[in-house]
Amino acid sequence: MPTSAATADSGGRPRDGADGAELAAAAMTGDRRALARVLTAVENRTSVAEAALRALYPRAGRAHLVGVTGPPGTGKSTLVAALTRMARAAGRAVGVIAVDPSSPITGGALLGDRVRMQEHAGDRDVFIRSMAARGHAGGLAPTSIAAADVLDAAGFDLVLIETVGTGQSEVEVAAAADTTVVLEAPESGDEVQAIKAGLLEVADIVVVNKADRPGAGRTASHLRAMLVAAAARSVSPGRPQPKRPEVLLTTASTGDGVAELLAALDRHRPGPGAGRGASERALVRAEAQVSAVLGTRLDARLRDPVVRPERDRLVAEVAAHRLDPYTAADALLALLAPGVG
Amino acid sequence: MPTSAATADSGGRPRDGADGAELAAAAMTGDRRALARVLTAVENRTSVAEAALRALYPRAGRAHLVGVTGPPGTGKSTLVAALTRMARAAGRAVGVIAVDPSSPITGGALLGDRVRMQEHAGDRDVFIRSMAARGHAGGLAPTSIAAADVLDAAGFDLVLIETVGTGQSEVEVAAAADTTVVLEAPESGDEVQAIKAGLLEVADIVVVNKADRPGAGRTASHLRAMLVAAAARSVSPGRPQPKRPEVLLTTASTGDGVAELLAALDRHRPGPGAGRGASERALVRAEAQVSAVLGTRLDARLRDPVVRPERDRLVAEVAAHRLDPYTAADALLALLAPGVG
Repeated sequence: MPTSAATADSGGRPRDGADGAELAAAAMTGDRRALARVLTAVENRTSVAEAALRALYPRAGRAHLVGVTGPPGTGKSTLVAALTRMARAAGRAVGVIAVDPSSPITGGALLGDRVRMQEHAGDRDVFIRSMAARGHAGGLAPTSIAAADVLDAAGFDLVLIETVGTGQSEVEVAAAADTTVVLEAPESGDEVQAIKAGLLEVADIVVVNKADRPGAGRTASHLRAMLVAAAARSVSPGRPQPKRPEVLLTTASTGDGVAELLAALDRHRPGPGAGRGASERALVRAEAQVSAVLGTRLDARLRDPVVRPERDRLVAEVAAHRLDPYTAADALLALLAPGVG
Repeated sequence: MPTSAATADSGGRPRDGADGAELAAAAMTGDRRALARVLTAVENRTSVAEAALRALYPRAGRAHLVGVTGPPGTGKSTLVAALTRMARAAGRAVGVIAVDPSSPITGGALLGDRVRMQEHAGDRDVFIRSMAARGHAGGLAPTSIAAADVLDAAGFDLVLIETVGTGQSEVEVAAAADTTVVLEAPESGDEVQAIKAGLLEVADIVVVNKADRPGAGRTASHLRAMLVAAAARSVSPGRPQPKRPEVLLTTASTGDGVAELLAALDRHRPGPGAGRGASERALVRAEAQVSAVLGTRLDARLRDPVVRPERDRLVAEVAAHRLDPYTAADALLALLAPGVG
C-alpha cells in the first residue's frame, strides 16, 4: 500500500520506538495511526501499552460502551455496521472493537478490518478494529475492555464491542459493556437454542434480527414470554426488581428497526459523572483490568531469571503427576513473597 | 427424587461435611456418588476440592484425554455418544466432561446430564458430567482439566472432553487434551467457515461428521488441501516437521466411521510413563492448573479483611477513571507483599 507508506513517512507520526505516553498523547489529539499503534500494543500487552494506558485512562469514562453478541449467523457484523452508519449520520464518532474467531498461527483476525472498513474509508470519525480472540495472556475481557477505553479516551462517543455469543470469554466481554445487546435470529438448531437461552441472561436489549424472515414475530413473542418467566422466577423480597430486557426487531441489512435500537441504546446509556463510575458494570470492568495487571505482574515475577528454573521444575513435576498443583503453587508463592501467606 | 434420597441415606456414602481426602479416597475405590461430589467441589473451587485434588492428583496421568470440539450443529454430542458406546464395547471405562453453554442463574448446564446419561444408566463404567461454561473463578480450562484429572484418577481409561468450538476458553480446553478432535459438518455459513479455519490449527484429527449428507467428500478434500497448504507454510529449517492432521469421515448417528476414529485416537495416544508427563500438552495443562491455584491464592489474599476495604476502594477509583489499573494493581501488590516487586 504505497499511499499509506507515503503517509507514514510524512510528518506528525511518532517515530518508531516512541514511548507509550507520547503515542497516547498523539492518539488523544486525533492521530489515527498513533491510535492504531496503541491498540496493537494493548492487544499484545507490551510495555508501551502500560505507559499508554496510564496516560489514556483518566481521559476515558465518557463513551457509551455497547456489547453486541449472539450465536453465529445472527448478523452481528451487519447490525454493527448499520448502527455505525446511523450514529455517524447523527454526527457521533463511532469506534468498533470486533473480536473475531482467529488464527493463532497467522496471528490475525479472520474476518478482518479491511472488509469492515471499506464503507467508512476516509471518515476519521469511524474507527474499526478487529481483535483476535486468541492468545491474550491477560485474558480476552480485560484486553477488549482496555481497547474500548483507548477508543473512549480518543473521543469516540459510541464504542461497539462485537463478540460471538457461544464462547464464555466472548460473552463476558459483551456483558461487561454499559449496555449488552443480544442478537437472535428467527430459526436455529437445538444447540443454538440452548446458547440463546444462556445469552438472554446477560441481555439489556434483545434484538431479533433478520426480521424479514418468516417466524420473526413468533420468535420475538416467544422471547418476551421467556423473559417474563425468567424475571418472575428471580423476584425475591428485599432485592431490586429484576430487569426485563426490551425485545426489538431489526433487519440490519435494510436498516429497518435500527433507529429504534439506537434510541433504546440511548435510553439505556448510564448518566455522566460519578454515577457512571459507580455502576456495577464499571466496577466489573475495573476489577477485570486490575486483576489482569496483577496477573501480568505475577507472570513477570515468575519469568525472573532467579525464579524461572524452579517454576519450570515445579510445572514439570506437576505434569508428571509427581506433585499436585496446590503444592507447586504454594512453593512458588513462598519463593515470590517469603513471609507472606 | 425419593429414590436418590433413600440411596443417600444408606451406608457407604461419606457423610455430609466429609473432607476432601475422604471423598477422594471413596471416589478412587469406585464410589460414584463420592466422585460426583468431588466433581461438584472442583467445579465450585471449594476447599473440599483442594483437599480432594491433592489426594487424587498423584493417581491421575494414565487416562487418554481427548478433546472434541467444533462449531455448533456439527454433532459433537452425538459423536461423543458413539465413541463412548464403542469404547465401552471394547471394555474400556469412559468418562465424559461436556462443557455446555450454560445459565448463570439456574446454575446448571442446559443440555444436561440426564439426557446424556439415559443410555448408560446402570453402567458404572460410564460417567458423564455436564459442566457449565460460566462462572469459573479460576478459568474454564483449569477447572475442566482438573475435572478430567479426577476421572482419570478414578480409573476411567478414556476421558472425552466436549466443548463448543466458537469460544476461546472452550477451544483452549479441547486443545489442552492429549489428542484434539475438531469436527466439521459438510455445509455451513460464512461466520462458521471462519471459525472452522481457526479451529483447524488446534486439530490432531479432523472429522467431517454427518458424512451421509451431500458434499461431505468434497468438504473432506477441501480440508485436506487446506491442511497441506497450512503445513507447507509452517515448514522452517531447524524446526520440527509440522503435524498434519488426519481427516476422517463419520456419521455419528449411524456409527459409520466411528471405529476408524477410535483407532486413530489410539494411534495418537501418548506412551505411558515419563514420556507422557513430559509432553507439551501435559506441560500446558500443568501450567494452567498451577496458574489457577496462584490466582485463587491471590484472590483469597485480596478478600482478607485487612486488605479488602483498600482493594474495594482502589477498584472504585479505577471504575471512576480517577486511577489507572496499573497504579491500583501496584498499590495492591505493595500491600500484599511489601518489599517484593
